[in-house]
Amino acid sequence: MSSANQVLIAIIGAGGVGKCFLSQLQTLASRRPTPKLSICYISTSKKALFNNDYSPIPTETAVDELAASTKVPFALPNIVDYLAAAPSKVILVDNTSSQDVADAYPSFLSRGISIVTPNKKAFSGSYKLWQEIFAAAADSGAKVYHESSVGAGLPVISTLKDLVDTGDEVTKIEGVFSGTMSFLFNSFAPLEGSGGQWSAEVKKAKELGYTEPDPRDDLNGLDVARKLTILARLAGLPVESPTSFPVQSLIPKELESVSSGDEFLQRLPEFDSQMEETKAAAGNQGKVVRFVGSIDVATKAVKVGLEMFDRSHPIAALKGSDNIISFYTKRYGSNPLIVQGAGAGGDVTAMGVTSDLLKVISQISK
Amino acid sequence: MSSANQVLIAIIGAGGVGKCFLSQLQTLASRRPTPKLSICYISTSKKALFNNDYSPIPTETAVDELAASTKVPFALPNIVDYLAAAPSKVILVDNTSSQDVADAYPSFLSRGISIVTPNKKAFSGSYKLWQEIFAAAADSGAKVYHESSVGAGLPVISTLKDLVDTGDEVTKIEGVFSGTMSFLFNSFAPLEGSGGQWSAEVKKAKELGYTEPDPRDDLNGLDVARKLTILARLAGLPVESPTSFPVQSLIPKELESVSSGDEFLQRLPEFDSQMEETKAAAGNQGKVVRFVGSIDVATKAVKVGLEMFDRSHPIAALKGSDNIISFYTKRYGSNPLIVQGAGAGGDVTAMGVTSDLLKVISQISK
Repeated sequence: MSSANQVLIAIIGAGGVGKCFLSQLQTLASRRPTPKLSICYISTSKKALFNNDYSPIPTETAVDELAASTKVPFALPNIVDYLAAAPSKVILVDNTSSQDVADAYPSFLSRGISIVTPNKKAFSGSYKLWQEIFAAAADSGAKVYHESSVGAGLPVISTLKDLVDTGDEVTKIEGVFSGTMSFLFNSFAPLEGSGGQWSAEVKKAKELGYTEPDPRDDLNGLDVARKLTILARLAGLPVESPTSFPVQSLIPKELESVSSGDEFLQRLPEFDSQMEETKAAAGNQGKVVRFVGSIDVATKAVKVGLEMFDRSHPIAALKGSDNIISFYTKRYGSNPLIVQGAGAGGDVTAMGVTSDLLKVISQISK
Repeated sequence: MSSANQVLIAIIGAGGVGKCFLSQLQTLASRRPTPKLSICYISTSKKALFNNDYSPIPTETAVDELAASTKVPFALPNIVDYLAAAPSKVILVDNTSSQDVADAYPSFLSRGISIVTPNKKAFSGSYKLWQEIFAAAADSGAKVYHESSVGAGLPVISTLKDLVDTGDEVTKIEGVFSGTMSFLFNSFAPLEGSGGQWSAEVKKAKELGYTEPDPRDDLNGLDVARKLTILARLAGLPVESPTSFPVQSLIPKELESVSSGDEFLQRLPEFDSQMEETKAAAGNQGKVVRFVGSIDVATKAVKVGLEMFDRSHPIAALKGSDNIISFYTKRYGSNPLIVQGAGAGGDVTAMGVTSDLLKVISQISK
């Protein structure tokens, strides 16, 4: 089976986002007969499923078959070779957060394999990797889309690209880029009422599944710094890495090296008074405190940390675990273009991946 | 000159949006050598500029040359024939708000000519025209993009399409879709202070250039009804026309037939007490009044008119002449996906056209 009216899809990763993606892919394939979308490879870190002749793996049973498979994944260079030799155009869907997979993007792209992914690592790692990825894509004509790397399915990357590509001047980008941080501050320092104690809110967020297993992986600010790195680069700033600009960590120094997330949570109440002071200082000015990232394009200043906002500011009024991203540009003037909504979760992250997939398909198939 | 690495662009309309578009096209062409973008036809309602051999019209001098041209525009069927016979792929950019041009879209599309446009008429006219347009595009493979038909350059159409195409269920769309109405109500019933008199705000909006020459063309609600028609259809509702659902007009019955916009403005103060009552009624409930459109997909209810909103609602907090569009969907749950910002103006409207152009180019060129 080949070729012009078929697109082969290779999927690495079958966790939360991966499973949601497969479900969306199934709906898609049932609605759009042309081009035919066929999975030719799917793997987790331990198992793989593929046929040597690239014959399709049924979407509806892929997860179960993968769990039952006795095949182990190819090494990354062998996945590249396998996909480059396929009889149709291939799109790699990287649903992992693996740096190793990200490091292989230039190899995939230079062999004509397009990529769609929510994986932040490729675009927020070294600037050299960023350059290699887009150089490889430009050379071969393969496409690389990563909407869900910032704000999950929210139209953030596509909007920024449209602004830049049509010649607008982006002057500033500002927002709440972490669902976890959004939830924490909307509960800790809400517009109405006095809010909870900091350590109690962190504990609650973890219980609700809004944090990483060790909440310090959210509180260190690195996730937000990675997203800022991506947006800053798209806005034209050659940011070297997510650690090359100021990032405020909300982990008290004394708790950086405690051995477990549980011990961290146990000791966090000792530091509640610091956060209470921050909340009170904002309150005294009629403001609220939020954890935000901002990019000032003219001064090339990128930063992540606590800031105070007027109670009437859209960032102050955010709800639940929503993200908000404001684009200030020459064309839009004093009122920014704002995108707001859920910025995390399997379904909405997979939605960004699936809509990227559709965009690539529309460009590479006939 | 031809073919694979060239895309020909035909432009109808060289008014406010048209001039901004030409300026963006010039920037674009200077940045992206491939494919070569060449204007092969440009016209206003009275004049045209083209070469029989399709040789390029320089972008930078197109407006001046067009003003000096002695050629008259082709009739629409002849434009179709001229473009269908071109040696390269052609994209028609319709920067008019003409129903006649819109009615010809199926002819262009069925001959393989792609279309990008901010013109609402084609997508908010009869449902039959809507069906013919998309059937012709599906048949020939030509593309049709119209981001700027709702919310100018804001990512509204693209976001709704992504939601629908990836299998989300849109349950409700709600928002402020008119920059004029936004400005009027943000000034008449602001969150802070008591706001101005209704007739005075309408007069001010006209003086600032925020209304049509006759403000009744904004106050009748038809512009919002057209945008709602487009979004409802994209969400899957076969809305027959913008007059097939309830639309509240803010033109007092007694002033519907006065002969001029000036006379209308002169007599409008007679009706200020009605609007004051509406404002007071909302205020008594701790709310503000806004002019909104909404689509309830499950009940198929589309409507346009005045509604009251809590002071903490994002619609209440809107500023200036901004639009806001909230998408409630199954995946996004109780907190909608929100897009907000300037929804009118030459530059941001042209931006939507230019980014649509780039999307079409990426699909039709090699």
